Amino acid sequence: MQSFYQNFKLGVLGGGQLGRMLIQSAIDFNVDVHILDPDEHAPCRNLAKKFAIGKLTDFDTVYNFGKDCDVLTIEIENVNTDALKQLQKEGKKVFPQPEVIELIQDKGRQKLFYINNFIPTAPFERVENKTAVAKMKQFLPAVNKLRKEGYDGRGVQILRTENDLERAFDAPGILEKLIDFEKELSVIVARNESGQIKAFPVVELVFHPEHNLVEYLFAPAEITEQQSHRAKEIAEEVIKRLDMVGLLAVEMFLTKDGEILVNEIAPRTHNSGHQTIESSYTSQFEQHLRAILNMPLGPTGSKIPAAMVNLLGEDGHQGMAQYSGLEKILALEGAKVHLYGKKYTKPFRKMGHVTIIDQDVDRLKEKARFVKDNLKVIS
Amino acid sequence: MQSFYQNFKLGVLGGGQLGRMLIQSAIDFNVDVHILDPDEHAPCRNLAKKFAIGKLTDFDTVYNFGKDCDVLTIEIENVNTDALKQLQKEGKKVFPQPEVIELIQDKGRQKLFYINNFIPTAPFERVENKTAVAKMKQFLPAVNKLRKEGYDGRGVQILRTENDLERAFDAPGILEKLIDFEKELSVIVARNESGQIKAFPVVELVFHPEHNLVEYLFAPAEITEQQSHRAKEIAEEVIKRLDMVGLLAVEMFLTKDGEILVNEIAPRTHNSGHQTIESSYTSQFEQHLRAILNMPLGPTGSKIPAAMVNLLGEDGHQGMAQYSGLEKILALEGAKVHLYGKKYTKPFRKMGHVTIIDQDVDRLKEKARFVKDNLKVIS
Repeated sequence: MQSFYQNFKLGVLGGGQLGRMLIQSAIDFNVDVHILDPDEHAPCRNLAKKFAIGKLTDFDTVYNFGKDCDVLTIEIENVNTDALKQLQKEGKKVFPQPEVIELIQDKGRQKLFYINNFIPTAPFERVENKTAVAKMKQFLPAVNKLRKEGYDGRGVQILRTENDLERAFDAPGILEKLIDFEKELSVIVARNESGQIKAFPVVELVFHPEHNLVEYLFAPAEITEQQSHRAKEIAEEVIKRLDMVGLLAVEMFLTKDGEILVNEIAPRTHNSGHQTIESSYTSQFEQHLRAILNMPLGPTGSKIPAAMVNLLGEDGHQGMAQYSGLEKILALEGAKVHLYGKKYTKPFRKMGHVTIIDQDVDRLKEKARFVKDNLKVIS
Repeated sequence: MQSFYQNFKLGVLGGGQLGRMLIQSAIDFNVDVHILDPDEHAPCRNLAKKFAIGKLTDFDTVYNFGKDCDVLTIEIENVNTDALKQLQKEGKKVFPQPEVIELIQDKGRQKLFYINNFIPTAPFERVENKTAVAKMKQFLPAVNKLRKEGYDGRGVQILRTENDLERAFDAPGILEKLIDFEKELSVIVARNESGQIKAFPVVELVFHPEHNLVEYLFAPAEITEQQSHRAKEIAEEVIKRLDMVGLLAVEMFLTKDGEILVNEIAPRTHNSGHQTIESSYTSQFEQHLRAILNMPLGPTGSKIPAAMVNLLGEDGHQGMAQYSGLEKILALEGAKVHLYGKKYTKPFRKMGHVTIIDQDVDRLKEKARFVKDNLKVIS
């Protein structure tokens, strides 16, 4: 176990809502958190022991920030991994390891990793540019993804018919068979330095039809015992094969044939684990700390079923954020509001989330719908 | 409802662990917390949006700190209420109200308040000094309390026999009949500006035999339905009669005759409510924020039974704190460690607490004992 509670500095690349909730959790362990973020108004600005402003993709910025820390972690994948490798060479602990981050930064390499390790995933082809995609009519309908810098729905688009080939990305990417799935699932799994592995229960995601962002989720997912077992087994296999230390979110498809395929992975705390704060014995944020500081991992069982609704900036609204309907949600039994400390809203910006807990799953869904319909971030 | 999530400042007098956990909760509402505390190393020092160092009992210090805030609250009763009254006169919201804080600062007035409002409490006499106590042999065994500045077990002592009269406090105080109680209970109750009132379930306290500090507690208390109802009813009656806004902890005795008597009250978040963070739909810290910002109060039901063990500095140890046995506790299913960010330990200093949750009450008690026996704060 890392001696973490006296004169210890955890450095985090990224100071958004994930960093913010990580700090909320780190307080309980006396862990001092240092944050690096390019945005002087980032959600962590007032909560970090030290808040440094700088580019996460710049070698010197990341290296100089990291030199002063004992352990380094990330809350976003788009960071300078060369600097992290150098810091690792100089004896710093970096979790997830820079090699894992690099693998995940590149969706082409990510897919090859699945193939090489017998992890079930959708069939795909690597494509160099638009011209290459144009030759693959037979592969449609497909999902065209940029190899690099896709994040939060950016760099991903569906090409259904020949006409869509027109707007294929003109950059290195992949073309993935569009899966006609039954459900989208996610499993968050943790691994510490000693090799202990624990997965949280499977959750079921519902995406916004246009914006490729999780709109709401339910935990536990309504799937068979066997499917749940299989999904967790796959997540555990992925983190083991990556030889990764930290938290990993594994997003999956449950196909209409009952097969489970890995869609994407993120080596960090994840939107699909926010409900663990209220509903699990251990939150994903505490679990991440336990993993990277080599503490024993916490139990991942649920105290109570939960739903989570993302609070996205309303379309057509840009400016100082107002939370319309907030009082109604505060009066809703079992609803827990999390605002992310962002002063300004813009369309589809993640401004907060609401977790709803309830012993009754139907009531849970009803309440999630109520939150979705009544709470709006406007300007 | 107070508009709390943009350009809003909550001022808190006191920056100890209660302020720290309040900040953890305030993060979710985008509430900026300003802290005033005399100790530059106070647990809130790195987490407050603004951390001011100064005496809480000094008029100018409190007044100048408060001028800059929108709403003011406390995490300790020993504060300058004249400054708070002045701020209130100038239009600031101060919750709990200064008049309530004054009443509670004075244990003599507190007891009179119970009598005047038909709140059941132990028989007592007011005493001016040691000489006055010496004349009250017939009243023994009794508890001798200083009227003012008692806190965390200080200013309270038991006088059992005539020989003990020797060490009676030589200052204004009260002499209270020693109650031969069955159990000590606590109810935390909240009231918002609109007058909505909600009580948390009754908890059962076990005190350290010598140091008059809560050693551990169980929630819910093992008492009859009727006793539980009565305890909550009394707590609600007290907050209503005080006309108070905020959170109130009401500590009570359950006598051997099954009667419930109010022992002491604290107009703030309280050690006997820490388990609400993990076990309740709403934590006491969020409930306090909801009350003082006039939001709807949150539901107070339990997700799961809980125990809470205070982590006190080990006797004979003074200096840089070390947490011996921590790894064992981190591996204990259902245990959640809260450290308070205090660099130095001293005998019986509150350094943290551990909440344990478990569906099975016997296992809960066993685990509480395990924590008590295995986790030690040493130097």
